[in-house]
Amino acid sequence: MKSLTEHLEFNVPSRRGFVNITPTIEELVRRSGVQEGLCLVNAMHITASVFINDDEPGLHADFDAFLERIAPHEPTSQYRHNRTGEDNADAHLKRQVMGREVVVTVTRGRLDFGPWEQVFYGEWDGRRKKRVLVKIIGE
Amino acid sequence: MKSLTEHLEFNVPSRRGFVNITPTIEELVRRSGVQEGLCLVNAMHITASVFINDDEPGLHADFDAFLERIAPHEPTSQYRHNRTGEDNADAHLKRQVMGREVVVTVTRGRLDFGPWEQVFYGEWDGRRKKRVLVKIIGE
Amino acid sequence: MKSLTEHLEFNVPSRRGFVNITPTIEELVRRSGVQEGLCLVNAMHITASVFINDDEPGLHADFDAFLERIAPHEPTSQYRHNRTGEDNADAHLKRQVMGREVVVTVTRGRLDFGPWEQVFYGEWDGRRKKRVLVKIIGE
Repeated sequence: MKSLTEHLEFNVPSRRGFVNITPTIEELVRRSGVQEGLCLVNAMHITASVFINDDEPGLHADFDAFLERIAPHEPTSQYRHNRTGEDNADAHLKRQVMGREVVVTVTRGRLDFGPWEQVFYGEWDGRRKKRVLVKIIGE
Repeated sequence: MKSLTEHLEFNVPSRRGFVNITPTIEELVRRSGVQEGLCLVNAMHITASVFINDDEPGLHADFDAFLERIAPHEPTSQYRHNRTGEDNADAHLKRQVMGREVVVTVTRGRLDFGPWEQVFYGEWDGRRKKRVLVKIIGE
Repeated sequence: MKSLTEHLEFNVPSRRGFVNITPTIEELVRRSGVQEGLCLVNAMHITASVFINDDEPGLHADFDAFLERIAPHEPTSQYRHNRTGEDNADAHLKRQVMGREVVVTVTRGRLDFGPWEQVFYGEWDGRRKKRVLVKIIGE
């Protein structure tokens, strides 16, 4: 069994944002030498997500508007969590809706993607360093 | 290490719908010969989901009503993504809420399911061909 | 390849509640002897979730309020599923939003967690016995 573990670092300059990490993941799969296996990509922080969807800016604006509608940042006083001195309770909610991780198959040495699948880091409480874990495991 | 990779094809005749794919997954696990391992099932399209829940038509109607309430299809002009000529921005949102994939354990050659767990393909933008990937990996 | 499979049992005394199962999962990883691999933790019931977030009671109250806002328990008659004699349609919806499972990497014999990651069992329809499956697989 082969495995490769890598941590990616992000520092998104705005509160919320999306980063396409597909090329990085593909490169790590090549480096791992795994031909048949699984690739797990997960946010290591609980106010961020890793998810697979389309690389289209209009859609990203729709995601943001949708999440702000169902779990708005303001007023921050509406959340009990923010009584601890935080202002990011909404970011914890957004992360649950969008997910923590994706598991992608590796087949014949490549990520087995559908036509439009792209892996994104989703930031819900940025302007600080955060990490994503990539683990590739197989033979 | 053994592995089996299979692509399932769907063409749901309506915009939204659910297909119970549990028997197909069980048959693939048998064919794989894997006794101890993991089974990943994921939508290869970003306007579809794979999820595990109950096979009860009333519940499926509730899922549909819930998703239409929080991310309605109409008016399609409310979404920036639809300015690209698409009308399926809502389907991308519904997919995020319902999820892309499930990972199920294989134990003693069988899917290790709870009493009511059934695997569904969830279509949010149908009337076209789409695929689901099944990968079983283990020993 | 090594693997360890374990079922955890819960009987949450209220309708909804959260149980931090991180120490149990860590102990199972130690017992498995796996140094490099994956750990899958999933609810075996379709009105419960396993998810990773913060162990902060205010945040848990926010999760509960958020889920009740987008998928309220009352009035139970608003859901088609409840015509079957159940009153838990909302619990099926809450489970989809919060997720069924998490996959966590095992690196050098330990769960590779970010600074605040804690694994929770989320109950949406309690006062009955339910189970969670833990499978650790690797070398």
